[in-house]
Amino acid sequence: MRIALLGGTGEIGEGLALRWGHDTDHDIVIGSRDPEKAREAANDYETELADRGVDAKVTGFENTMAADRADMVVVAVPPYHVADTIEAVAGSLAEGDIIISPATGMQRDEDGFHYHPPDAGSVTAIAAAAAPDEVPVVGAFHNLAAGRLADLDSDLGIDTLVVADDGDAKATVSGLAEDIEGLRALDAGGLANAAEIESLTPLLINVAMNNDGLHDLGVRFD
Amino acid sequence: MRIALLGGTGEIGEGLALRWGHDTDHDIVIGSRDPEKAREAANDYETELADRGVDAKVTGFENTMAADRADMVVVAVPPYHVADTIEAVAGSLAEGDIIISPATGMQRDEDGFHYHPPDAGSVTAIAAAAAPDEVPVVGAFHNLAAGRLADLDSDLGIDTLVVADDGDAKATVSGLAEDIEGLRALDAGGLANAAEIESLTPLLINVAMNNDGLHDLGVRFD
Repeated sequence: MRIALLGGTGEIGEGLALRWGHDTDHDIVIGSRDPEKAREAANDYETELADRGVDAKVTGFENTMAADRADMVVVAVPPYHVADTIEAVAGSLAEGDIIISPATGMQRDEDGFHYHPPDAGSVTAIAAAAAPDEVPVVGAFHNLAAGRLADLDSDLGIDTLVVADDGDAKATVSGLAEDIEGLRALDAGGLANAAEIESLTPLLINVAMNNDGLHDLGVRFD
Repeated sequence: MRIALLGGTGEIGEGLALRWGHDTDHDIVIGSRDPEKAREAANDYETELADRGVDAKVTGFENTMAADRADMVVVAVPPYHVADTIEAVAGSLAEGDIIISPATGMQRDEDGFHYHPPDAGSVTAIAAAAAPDEVPVVGAFHNLAAGRLADLDSDLGIDTLVVADDGDAKATVSGLAEDIEGLRALDAGGLANAAEIESLTPLLINVAMNNDGLHDLGVRFD
């Protein structure tokens, strides 16, 4: 499978690129608004994987070119860039492609991090509203600590929650998630259930901030 | 320590009463608006514990009498009764007592269960607003599946998140939580961080509804 990571020069994009590069044979395409940055990041990831003895193919392109080359398009950008990023690449998407939305919004105040759902209900819902009608949106990977994901020496042993209104797309993305060693995909229902998933991310940070010895937390449902 | 469980005839009250009765020497006081129901429930819990060879003291009283007899007052009532229950027992509370709020609100629609924070920000914040000034409120036990908690044959191995603005009260309640075998208390910061905890409860139900073999879910931060 060919997976584009738009905003793939950022932390969550790096983590997913390295994990899929390490654990699977999928082709990884790094997207960025700046094609030079995308190529540099792709080269860095390939080098890190080669240092670990993994001969993975990671390439870098401007976002629309990256989206054009892939079946799976992960929108690994900050929440306020989700809509414009999808709209910018819409012409490069075709029936059969799937958009994956891992972004969540939060704000920090004196007490900690807090989730304030956008008017659309969730950042995942913003992605769905911006996507072409024929391209399903799947919410996944919202609650993964980017640093831990990008550290291939760190075991995961955690869950990711997957939401979508299109059952086939949800199953495909759940499979992609479980291709990553130590990651279990759990079905959390339809896109309307995304807000409670996104809200878990600031909670994970609050818990890490308040408990010695806990950091880069993930969650396991048991 | 003496722990009153207001609304202790309900599922979460039953679970906490049985766990504390089984795992600790704390005196358990069941509260209800109907003293006869409280006495019946207390008797039932004592009998179940005796059947397991545990000689625990569980008594039952009308809510204000139960609060009067205890240092720790758990408001184990539905979210829409949190404020009036605390106001009804306020005269029975004294400096040194602690109110514990496990309630969370959620609504079901066609997609699943959803968290809609009340105007106060969270149900825990409603409890704090209703409490006398000299009695600190601690949010805890929001995300425990009641049926699993009440089933003493079921291992826990899960976490509960604790929030409070009063550090001493938070430490006391965290200790009470960890008195229950298999339950780990994690500090999630101040009361302002309660909404993201309460929001986890409908998510746990959505995950249980959508994945075969998962039910009565708890969560472990790792």
